[in-house]
Amino acid sequence: MNQPEHQQPRVLDYVDRELEPSLGRLFELLRIPSISTDPEFAGDCRRAARLLADELADLGFSSRVADTEGHPMVVAHHEGRGPHILFYGHYDVQPVDPLDLWRRDPFDPVIEERGDGSRYIVGRGASDDKGQLRTFVEACRAWKETTGELPCSVTIFLEGEEESASPSLDPFLRANRDELAADFALICDTTMWDRDTPALTMGLRGTAAGEVRIKAAARDLHSGLYGGPARNPIQLLCEILASLKDADGRVTLDGFYDGVGPVPEEMKASWARLGFDEEAFLGEVGLSEPAGERGQPVLDQCWARPTADINGISGGYTGDGFKTVIPSEAFAKLSFRLVGEQDPKKVWASFERHVRDRLPADCTATFWERGGSRAISLDSDSDEVRSVRSALRAEWGTEAALLGCGGSIPVVHSIREILGLESVLVGFALNDDQIHSPNEKYELKSFHKGIRSWVRILGELGGTRVHQSAGETEPAL
Amino acid sequence: MNQPEHQQPRVLDYVDRELEPSLGRLFELLRIPSISTDPEFAGDCRRAARLLADELADLGFSSRVADTEGHPMVVAHHEGRGPHILFYGHYDVQPVDPLDLWRRDPFDPVIEERGDGSRYIVGRGASDDKGQLRTFVEACRAWKETTGELPCSVTIFLEGEEESASPSLDPFLRANRDELAADFALICDTTMWDRDTPALTMGLRGTAAGEVRIKAAARDLHSGLYGGPARNPIQLLCEILASLKDADGRVTLDGFYDGVGPVPEEMKASWARLGFDEEAFLGEVGLSEPAGERGQPVLDQCWARPTADINGISGGYTGDGFKTVIPSEAFAKLSFRLVGEQDPKKVWASFERHVRDRLPADCTATFWERGGSRAISLDSDSDEVRSVRSALRAEWGTEAALLGCGGSIPVVHSIREILGLESVLVGFALNDDQIHSPNEKYELKSFHKGIRSWVRILGELGGTRVHQSAGETEPAL
Repeated sequence: MNQPEHQQPRVLDYVDRELEPSLGRLFELLRIPSISTDPEFAGDCRRAARLLADELADLGFSSRVADTEGHPMVVAHHEGRGPHILFYGHYDVQPVDPLDLWRRDPFDPVIEERGDGSRYIVGRGASDDKGQLRTFVEACRAWKETTGELPCSVTIFLEGEEESASPSLDPFLRANRDELAADFALICDTTMWDRDTPALTMGLRGTAAGEVRIKAAARDLHSGLYGGPARNPIQLLCEILASLKDADGRVTLDGFYDGVGPVPEEMKASWARLGFDEEAFLGEVGLSEPAGERGQPVLDQCWARPTADINGISGGYTGDGFKTVIPSEAFAKLSFRLVGEQDPKKVWASFERHVRDRLPADCTATFWERGGSRAISLDSDSDEVRSVRSALRAEWGTEAALLGCGGSIPVVHSIREILGLESVLVGFALNDDQIHSPNEKYELKSFHKGIRSWVRILGELGGTRVHQSAGETEPAL
Repeated sequence: MNQPEHQQPRVLDYVDRELEPSLGRLFELLRIPSISTDPEFAGDCRRAARLLADELADLGFSSRVADTEGHPMVVAHHEGRGPHILFYGHYDVQPVDPLDLWRRDPFDPVIEERGDGSRYIVGRGASDDKGQLRTFVEACRAWKETTGELPCSVTIFLEGEEESASPSLDPFLRANRDELAADFALICDTTMWDRDTPALTMGLRGTAAGEVRIKAAARDLHSGLYGGPARNPIQLLCEILASLKDADGRVTLDGFYDGVGPVPEEMKASWARLGFDEEAFLGEVGLSEPAGERGQPVLDQCWARPTADINGISGGYTGDGFKTVIPSEAFAKLSFRLVGEQDPKKVWASFERHVRDRLPADCTATFWERGGSRAISLDSDSDEVRSVRSALRAEWGTEAALLGCGGSIPVVHSIREILGLESVLVGFALNDDQIHSPNEKYELKSFHKGIRSWVRILGELGGTRVHQSAGETEPAL
C-alpha cells in the first residue's frame, strides 16, 4: 500500500479534473428546499438526507438515514488506516424570506462571475452548510476514486436541524454514542479569514434564545374607544425591550455578565495581527457606527462580548393601509450571544424575571425558551490542530488564522459533552457569503480549494507526511 | 296633507311590522366584504355602494354612485316639507384579522340570542357602520311606504373610505358643494350611553397617524456574525417608541400638549352624572389598571386627553420557529388621539423630529403620514339638537346623554369646513359592540329602536310636533 503522501498529488489532480461533476452534485443538493424550521418542508429535509446517504453508500460507506423525532440524521462509516475522524455538517438551510430581495429562486442555484473573473455559487445553502459539507464528501470521493481507500477511518454525521435549534441532536448523540465513537471531530461550518487566508475557528459564542408574548386586554380594542386607559402591549413590549440595554450598549439583565472574562492577552495579540478593518467590516453592510458596548473594539464585540439581539417583533395591524387598533397581544423573538462561562439557562431565566418585573398587574407574559448553548474555547495545541494547520498551509501557501467566532455551533458543545471528543473547526466560507440572508453565495474557490484542503488534511492526519505543493515534500511533523 | 305628528304612529307601526325584511336588507349588505383599506376588496366596496344606490332609487330618491379616485360615494336626494338634512354614513368596514378569533365567517351574519332573550346581529360592519346607516334608510323607507313622502328634504351621503382615512372625502365635498347643500348634517356612527340611554355625541377626539420605517444595515444580517456591532433596527425602534411616554403616561413629543385645555366644568359635571364605572369599563375587556396619564379619570383619558397609540409593529423573523437574524429594517404604525386645539400636522411633524433626533448616523427613517383631523366640539344649544333630544326622549323614555367620544369622525370636521354645516351625532351602537374587533355585533334593539328613533327625529324636525308614545301627545317645542 502506498503512503498517502505519495498518492496525494494524484488525488488532488482528480479533484481538479472532476470539479464540474462535483459542482453538479452540489447543485442537486441545493435544489432541495430543506428548510428545517418550517414543517412544510419536512419532506424536502428527508429527501436531502436520502440523497446524501445514497451517495455515501455508492462511495463505499455503510450509510443510513436515521430517524429522529424531527428531521433525520445521516450516519455513514468507512474504515481507513489512520485515526478515526467524526465529520459533522448539516444539510438543512435557513428560511428564504424576504423572498423579494433574492435576485432569483433561492433553490435554483447558479454560478455567477465577477468582472475579475472570480466565480461564486448563488443559492440558499450554497455556503451554509451544503457547499461546506460537500467539500469534505468530495475529498473522500477523490481519495476513494483515486486510491480505492481513505487515509483515515471516517464517520460522516450530517444533521438536518442545525438551523432550527437541533432538538434531536443531543438525544441522538446519547442514543448512538458507540456508533459515533471517534478520536476527534472535524466540523465544516465556519469561515476563512479572507479569501486567501484559511482559518481554524478556536472559539464560539454560545446562545440563549426564545420568544416572549405579552397579553393585555382580552381582545383587540378600538383605539378611539379605549386609547388612553387601555394598556397597549406593543408599547409595553417596546419599553421592556428598550430596557434590555443601557446607554453604553451594555445588557441590563441581572447577573448577565457573570462568567464573562477579559479576552486573554495572547488571543488579543493574535487578533491584532489580523489587520481587521472595522470600517470596512461595517461598511460592507452599509453601517458606519459600532452599536455594541461602548469602548469595545468591533472584533471583541463580535467574538468576545455577549449581546442581546431582538430577532423578530410583531403586534397589531401590520398589513397594507391602517387600523386604529390597540391589539390584545404582541410578541418578540430574541437571542443572547454568550461568551466565557455564561450559563444559557440562567440568562434566559434572568430575561424572564426582567420581563415579569415590568409587567402591570393586568398583563401576562408567556415565554417559549428555544434552548441554547454555552460558549466554547478550543485547544490550539493538539496534534490534530497542528496537522490541520500544516495541511492548510500547504494548500493555501499561508499560515491559517486562529479566529474567534460570534456565532454558535452548539454541536461542538454536544460532541464534547456527550461523545467526549474535541473538535477542529475548519471551513471555507467567507464573511460576505450572506448566509441567512437573500442571495447567499459560496466562492467557487472556496469549494474547489476546500475539497483540496480536505484531501490534504485527510492525508496529513492519516499519513503523517505532507505534500506541500507539486514537486516539494515536507518533513513529517 | 297630514301633519307628521298624526302620521307618525302609523309609520312606527310599519317599522315594527316590517322589521324582518329590514333585517334581510341589512344582512344583504353585511354579506358584502367591503373592506376599504385592502385593494383586493375594491370590487366589493363598489358592489355595496351600488346596492345602496339602487335601493334608494327604488325608494324614490334620485340617487347615484359617484366615482372618486378611491371607492365610490353614494349620493341620493329626496324632497320633503321640512328642513334639508344631509345624512352621512359609511358602507365600508374594517379588516377582519385576526380571523381565527371570529366564531364564524365575518361576512355570514347571524342573529344570536342571550339567556335573557335579547338578540344581536353578529358580523363585520353589523354596528360600524352598516347597521347604523341602515337605521336611517329604513326610517326613510317607513315614512315613504306609509305616507308617500318624507317629513324633511333628505340628502343621503354614504362614504366607502371611512375606515381607510377617507382620502376622497374632502375633494368630493369640495367638488360637490352645491349638490350637498343642506341646513345641517345628521351623522349616525356613534354610540348610546348604555343599552337603555340614547345619546348625542358632542365632542370627538381628532387624530394624527402614520407609519415610520427604520432602516439600518443594507441587508439582513446573521446575528452570529454581526451581533454586537451591527445596529438592530428593532431595538432602535423599540427605544424610540418607548420614549414616546414618560413614567406618568404623558406623551413626550415636543409641543404635544399645545392647545390641550382643561375639561370645561359644565362638561365635567355632566359626565359625573353618567355614573361611569371605571372598573367595569376596563374589566369588560380584561383590564384592571388605567394605563393613561396618571391622575386623570378614565373617562377623561378616553374623551378629553390626547394619547399616542402604537397600532402595529413588525420587524425581523416572525414566523414559526426561529431565525437568528438582525433585520435591516423594522416599522411601526401609530396614531395620536387629539383634543382641544391640537394640530394634527404639528403633532406628526413633532413625532418625525422626535424620531430623527434619536437616529444614529447610519440609520434612516422614512415616514408615511396617513393624515389626520382636529378634535371637534359641537354646539349643544341649537334648534336641531333640541329637536333630536326631544325625539329620543319620546322613543326611549329617558333623557339623551350628552357624551364625549374618544374616536375620530373626520367627516364632522370636513362637513363643517367645506360645506359650512354643523352636525348632530346620533347613533345606537354600544361600547361592547366590538367594532374593529372579531365578533362585531349590533343589538337587535339598537337596530329596531334606532329605526324608530329616526322616524321620530325626521317627524320632529319636519313637523315641529312629537308623538311621545302610543296614546300620548306632547306639546310642540
